[in-house]
Amino acid sequence: MSGTDIPHQSRRQLRLGAFLMGSGHHIAAWRHPDSPSIAGLDFQHFAQAAQAAEAAKFDLVFLSDSISVRSPDDPATHLAERSARLEPITLLSALAAVTERIGLVGTASAVYNEPFNVARRFASLDRLSSGRAGWNMVTSTNLFDPPNFGQPASLDHAQRYAHAAEFTDVVTGLWNSWDDGALRYDKQTGVLFDAEGLHPLHHRGDRFQVRGPLNVPPSPQTRPVLVQAGASDAGRETAARYAEVVFSAHQDFSEAQAFYRDVKSRLARYGRSPDELLVLPGVSPFVGRSEAEAQEKFEQLQSLITPEVGLALLRPLFGGVDLSAYPLDGPLPELPPTHQSKSRQHLLVELARREQLTIRQLYLRVAGARGHWQLVGTPSRIADELEQYFRDGAADGYNIMAPVLPGGLNDFIESVVPELQRRGLFRTEYETSTLRGNLGLGTVRRPGRHSSTQAAVPSAVR
Amino acid sequence: MSGTDIPHQSRRQLRLGAFLMGSGHHIAAWRHPDSPSIAGLDFQHFAQAAQAAEAAKFDLVFLSDSISVRSPDDPATHLAERSARLEPITLLSALAAVTERIGLVGTASAVYNEPFNVARRFASLDRLSSGRAGWNMVTSTNLFDPPNFGQPASLDHAQRYAHAAEFTDVVTGLWNSWDDGALRYDKQTGVLFDAEGLHPLHHRGDRFQVRGPLNVPPSPQTRPVLVQAGASDAGRETAARYAEVVFSAHQDFSEAQAFYRDVKSRLARYGRSPDELLVLPGVSPFVGRSEAEAQEKFEQLQSLITPEVGLALLRPLFGGVDLSAYPLDGPLPELPPTHQSKSRQHLLVELARREQLTIRQLYLRVAGARGHWQLVGTPSRIADELEQYFRDGAADGYNIMAPVLPGGLNDFIESVVPELQRRGLFRTEYETSTLRGNLGLGTVRRPGRHSSTQAAVPSAVR
Repeated sequence: MSGTDIPHQSRRQLRLGAFLMGSGHHIAAWRHPDSPSIAGLDFQHFAQAAQAAEAAKFDLVFLSDSISVRSPDDPATHLAERSARLEPITLLSALAAVTERIGLVGTASAVYNEPFNVARRFASLDRLSSGRAGWNMVTSTNLFDPPNFGQPASLDHAQRYAHAAEFTDVVTGLWNSWDDGALRYDKQTGVLFDAEGLHPLHHRGDRFQVRGPLNVPPSPQTRPVLVQAGASDAGRETAARYAEVVFSAHQDFSEAQAFYRDVKSRLARYGRSPDELLVLPGVSPFVGRSEAEAQEKFEQLQSLITPEVGLALLRPLFGGVDLSAYPLDGPLPELPPTHQSKSRQHLLVELARREQLTIRQLYLRVAGARGHWQLVGTPSRIADELEQYFRDGAADGYNIMAPVLPGGLNDFIESVVPELQRRGLFRTEYETSTLRGNLGLGTVRRPGRHSSTQAAVPSAVR
Repeated sequence: MSGTDIPHQSRRQLRLGAFLMGSGHHIAAWRHPDSPSIAGLDFQHFAQAAQAAEAAKFDLVFLSDSISVRSPDDPATHLAERSARLEPITLLSALAAVTERIGLVGTASAVYNEPFNVARRFASLDRLSSGRAGWNMVTSTNLFDPPNFGQPASLDHAQRYAHAAEFTDVVTGLWNSWDDGALRYDKQTGVLFDAEGLHPLHHRGDRFQVRGPLNVPPSPQTRPVLVQAGASDAGRETAARYAEVVFSAHQDFSEAQAFYRDVKSRLARYGRSPDELLVLPGVSPFVGRSEAEAQEKFEQLQSLITPEVGLALLRPLFGGVDLSAYPLDGPLPELPPTHQSKSRQHLLVELARREQLTIRQLYLRVAGARGHWQLVGTPSRIADELEQYFRDGAADGYNIMAPVLPGGLNDFIESVVPELQRRGLFRTEYETSTLRGNLGLGTVRRPGRHSSTQAAVPSAVR
């Protein structure tokens, strides 16, 4: 391509994910007057949101996961929508059938699954969707997960990341166990596959022994895109080693920029260049025609948080201490230090002291942001912020966490996306037919064998 | 309902499943001139077959499974289409989005999965499809499966069924862990669920410890339909205890009738009536406008079986002995007895001796029927046979195993289904919106709690 013949996509573009969560990301979204009933269990609700995101040229939809009812014996559980949800891979597979171009990224635990099963399901989704799948690899720390799987407790931090690394090695190894051209389907000779094109893995590690090969051949994007969200040192290192997309959670610019720089700087260690990993912070936008209207939308949701939910949100952040014995509109009492979430508790106590927050004000603060970046404002102001982070080395794009669905996502699509497009920051048409292609991640490097090229694949898999 | 006001469905109707298998059930189906390339990996291929079966008012589509490339180091593997396939639950979830009424039954191993994950995925599929899911519970004996899951060998026969029984107890227990009315979604009070409507399982067995509850509430059919296919004594007992549908494999009428009587007679032991379990033998129909045309269709497929595939089919039936050293068109040599498949080897040796079959003729015989009932003939002759088995206590319906897809299924739909409808043996419209309802299985009995009724559910789950 000559220097004078620059296509419209040669400018760096930001990437957008639509993080779909039941009635929305705000904890009280399901109580919003416009919220459809039982949204989190309704396929059509998700289908319409995914189709809207696709029409707006989003790179992907993203589904998180939880694998337990948080606290089955606690009445507050019955106030939280997340306790009843569709399993991400089944939901994404159904969404694959009603969308054509948007990426489908789902969460699956590297602790409570067999790596062969995870490799296989995402490879199936990748074939079903003609190359649009992504796997968000997580290691759970939820106390209520292990008892659903016959385990006494979660793995400790170090074990968890060693486990996750070996698990990911097996999954990617299985995804690499078929050469792209191995699928022949030669009716004349009766040869379906090249015998030499299948590579058993023969993995024998500390935690897993897996022979392979996988029983699903590569998709048009070769293999699913690898996604990760760990923020700790070990999490960042895992991301630098394996991930192609990182979802991050930040409250302000300097924090986001520091994270971005740190993760990108770790890539060289693994022979990777900075553009092989995209950093997408989560953003929860409250969009209004005026600042006042945006603020009103925010306050309306906040007012729907019941004290039971608010206190239930604080409890794990204070090591399980129940604050319901104290007056809601009184100050935060002196509390013993906790072992879990130590840094989080410290931050909250500091915040409450500094701003003289009552218990109610504190849980409203926690409930509103939930650790993610919140933007309340007009389309152009929100676009300004997104542009600044993107230009100044704090983000490659964003995972949009609409506070209510479908309304909040539609607001963003109708007013912020066109603004980003006008500024030349976001695509107006998909560049390719695969998630990997649209994210601009380039082709998959396959260790030890001929490298895969996207151009070479389609003829073999039509 | 008065005796004079008999609706068209009061006569006993037969049930039909469409067992979808890549290019078709015949081992050489993929080489058929009309076969679409890479059918087994093509979502649109399955979508069209499921939609055709739905238009014909089939009760369900069924997907089997295999969780390993049979023999990764054996070149013959690369001749068999089953080595590359889509995972059943991902495929069924996608099919849920493009169908409305047909049941979606998929296979999942009770050995290489966690019961919580299986319960959850099928419950998700059941919600996604508004009450159309079914789980075919299998215990694998394939030698190539354990090494993909870090296990040295398959469980032995007795262990396998004990394992399967406990696994099934956990899965059904999790499916019962929500009362039907527990989902409230009361925006006014902020109550999503009734706290008393969730029932942790607290299962502590020899093989599994699972707390629960499940994080997916009941579907309009309360829970997925339980399907099973074991033919051994332990398999029949498991079916009598748990299954609502049994897929069986028979070669002739007396065998089918004996199986039917035996399984139905075992139900009383578990407090169940004979109509709580439907027996659906597999049938592979080759339909022609004349007997000669039907026979021609059969011979055409047989001629496409390569010797490599034929010999690979015989090998496991003869304890791994490779017959390729012997002349294909010569007699079966004397062979040492095998430990696996003892009864099967004996049957084959007897068959070859009795009918003086060559090795080629023997593998063609095995490849053609593959243990299932094969019907080659005109629509009315095939309908005669299906009617006889159904009326004379050998079947409640059939799992149709089209030799080629979509052609063989379309032949059956266009010519045999109308004949069955003319005879009043098969529906012309779906009776209900759920799989359980269409199969006439009645409502789920929920041990120890108020019984679920289908009528009560829809208002809660809309």
